[in-house]
Amino acid sequence: MNRFKILHKDKSSRVGILKTAHGEIETPNFIPVGTQASVKAVSPRDLKELGAQVVLANTYHLMLRPGANLIEEMGGLHKFMGWNGPVMTDSGGFQVFSLGLALEHGVGKFLQNEFTKSKPRLNKVTEEGVIFQSHIDGSKYTLDAEKSIDLQVKLGADLIVAFDDLESPLHSFDETLKSLELTERWEQRSLKAFKKYAKAGQLLYGVTHGGVFEDLRIRSAKFVDKHFDAIALGGAHEDRKTLYKVVEWTVGSISEEKPRHLLGIGEVEDLFNCVERGIDLFDCAAPTRRARNGSLYVSPGSGDYSSLKGYQAKNYTINIKTSKFSKDKNPIDKNCKCLCCTNFTRAYLHHLYSTGEILYHELASIHNLFFVIDLMKKIRESIGNNRFDTLKNSWISF
Amino acid sequence: MNRFKILHKDKSSRVGILKTAHGEIETPNFIPVGTQASVKAVSPRDLKELGAQVVLANTYHLMLRPGANLIEEMGGLHKFMGWNGPVMTDSGGFQVFSLGLALEHGVGKFLQNEFTKSKPRLNKVTEEGVIFQSHIDGSKYTLDAEKSIDLQVKLGADLIVAFDDLESPLHSFDETLKSLELTERWEQRSLKAFKKYAKAGQLLYGVTHGGVFEDLRIRSAKFVDKHFDAIALGGAHEDRKTLYKVVEWTVGSISEEKPRHLLGIGEVEDLFNCVERGIDLFDCAAPTRRARNGSLYVSPGSGDYSSLKGYQAKNYTINIKTSKFSKDKNPIDKNCKCLCCTNFTRAYLHHLYSTGEILYHELASIHNLFFVIDLMKKIRESIGNNRFDTLKNSWISF
Repeated sequence: MNRFKILHKDKSSRVGILKTAHGEIETPNFIPVGTQASVKAVSPRDLKELGAQVVLANTYHLMLRPGANLIEEMGGLHKFMGWNGPVMTDSGGFQVFSLGLALEHGVGKFLQNEFTKSKPRLNKVTEEGVIFQSHIDGSKYTLDAEKSIDLQVKLGADLIVAFDDLESPLHSFDETLKSLELTERWEQRSLKAFKKYAKAGQLLYGVTHGGVFEDLRIRSAKFVDKHFDAIALGGAHEDRKTLYKVVEWTVGSISEEKPRHLLGIGEVEDLFNCVERGIDLFDCAAPTRRARNGSLYVSPGSGDYSSLKGYQAKNYTINIKTSKFSKDKNPIDKNCKCLCCTNFTRAYLHHLYSTGEILYHELASIHNLFFVIDLMKKIRESIGNNRFDTLKNSWISF
Repeated sequence: MNRFKILHKDKSSRVGILKTAHGEIETPNFIPVGTQASVKAVSPRDLKELGAQVVLANTYHLMLRPGANLIEEMGGLHKFMGWNGPVMTDSGGFQVFSLGLALEHGVGKFLQNEFTKSKPRLNKVTEEGVIFQSHIDGSKYTLDAEKSIDLQVKLGADLIVAFDDLESPLHSFDETLKSLELTERWEQRSLKAFKKYAKAGQLLYGVTHGGVFEDLRIRSAKFVDKHFDAIALGGAHEDRKTLYKVVEWTVGSISEEKPRHLLGIGEVEDLFNCVERGIDLFDCAAPTRRARNGSLYVSPGSGDYSSLKGYQAKNYTINIKTSKFSKDKNPIDKNCKCLCCTNFTRAYLHHLYSTGEILYHELASIHNLFFVIDLMKKIRESIGNNRFDTLKNSWISF
């Protein structure tokens, strides 16, 4: 049953291989997000060419459209979306959180918008599961542990995730504990459903919670480690500093030999800091979402940092929308070997963005995904050579 | 100077080669439209892979954004858009027409919308040229023969087009004659400017006009044939039947050995009927525009025609938006060898369209362009084998 093998360690960071029925995943690695069975603006062929080894699809979105039964009927997610590599699905728990507490507390994806703070939640959590309204047409759905696992099994994912309740970063200790206890019961039900329904080769991740409280995080880590073969780190963290603490508390309380997936995290700084703390896998919509908004990754040494300030410099991005790029003959990142950077200038990308051309989204998304996935490759190589620190320092302390 | 060579004739249809500084174009052929220096949703690599041999960009749009000077500074259109094959530009005349008479008469692109009939024109035609307002920000521009040629030379197109005045299909004989006389003066100015400015290897098309009037069409054809090495058929035609008449009148009055380009036409039925009448080249935004609207080409023998009626059957399309395709495991067209049809089902395309995924546009546009360009290849082969009629009958009389 041990499909994860650690090949080499450099302090706490490690390189390994996670085997699935649809191929091997080299770790540490980054998983592009294909919410609706499509990584936004990037074809499976381009995904493969840019080096992606696995994609993640969102169970919540697919249960609404086109429905897990339809995808099963079409031969499963791999066949449906024309991607024959490994596929991961999530439990739907995070989206349910977004429709509930995240709206009510004004946190998560909704944090930046003042107006959302007063919005009523679109879900209701009970012992059984969650009743929620579709964000598309308002129709009512229920999601619980058994249903989440059933959906993910039907989708045919290689890597699937137990159903959990998400705490809010604004929760007190007692509220967080209550949420964690519910998660633990739901995870046991998930495990039971998995044993009953799962197809050969599927791997189930348990998800650790406990908010920002060390003892709850440790309790959750030990619980998940006891019951599951693969560990996903989930739940709330107030800021970057807490996130790293959460990773340390969790990694310190789980088995060495199990794969560790940090859910929904993928900015450059986090990749370095969490690989350093022993994380193997990341997924995040940031590269493609950034691309659509004109935020394109550049590497240290691209000559851009001197002109960047604060947020952008920290996030290793340029904003292709700004007019200073309208005559820039350089590729987005002169160190990048992606399809976009080897063929097109910043001036052209700026033009495509300004004129609303769809091609912009393809090229920008390919660049941002290549950039992050190529960075993970460099990170693996650096660990293999016991030079992770050197690589990290050349990026983090530019 | 003769860069066009006819290789074989089958009655009036012919196969040939048009040589440019950026490669050869096999004729008859179809030219995808890349209005803003991008064929919508299709990368240059995919264009090449799907068989496109040449692309057309719109001078009017590029003069507004990003400007011909900027593109020249960036090394010309080929380099700017990452396409190293032949490029054609138009004169800007048609877009000016769209902003003027087409708005006033409710014809052309605006014919379908009742509300546009009452709109005031956004341009003013004088002997010198046209003063018009940008459709983007309302700022004033002038375009005339010398400027149009200068812009196209700066863009660095291989195939460029003389500046013309466009008649309305609602014009009387006298109005059409007056417009034609203006076009003739502008074309002579275009020719003069071309001789002065053109870079080595650029080829200038004269454009024939004369509306729906046989004697004016013949006059225009003879005028253009006398002065230009390449002939583009432009201007107004009320309907498909008139269009074919216009082609016959024109082709009957021009030299055999010059390339003949039918501007802005490219539906399947028209391709067959106009190749049959001696046309060598077509350009049209229909394949990519149809794709964006869910209208995808299917071939006779794909089993779809029995269920299609009227407009759709006539246009060789299915509407991927309709729910009957939600579980259809077939490719869009089972006879098609494009990237989309060899990898994805109608069900997946329907899902991508329904959920607003950008990938839909890439795949659908690739399919529609491949379909039309592959059809032109089949047409060339059929002419080479003296079997054009057989091929046409298998398509037109399904």
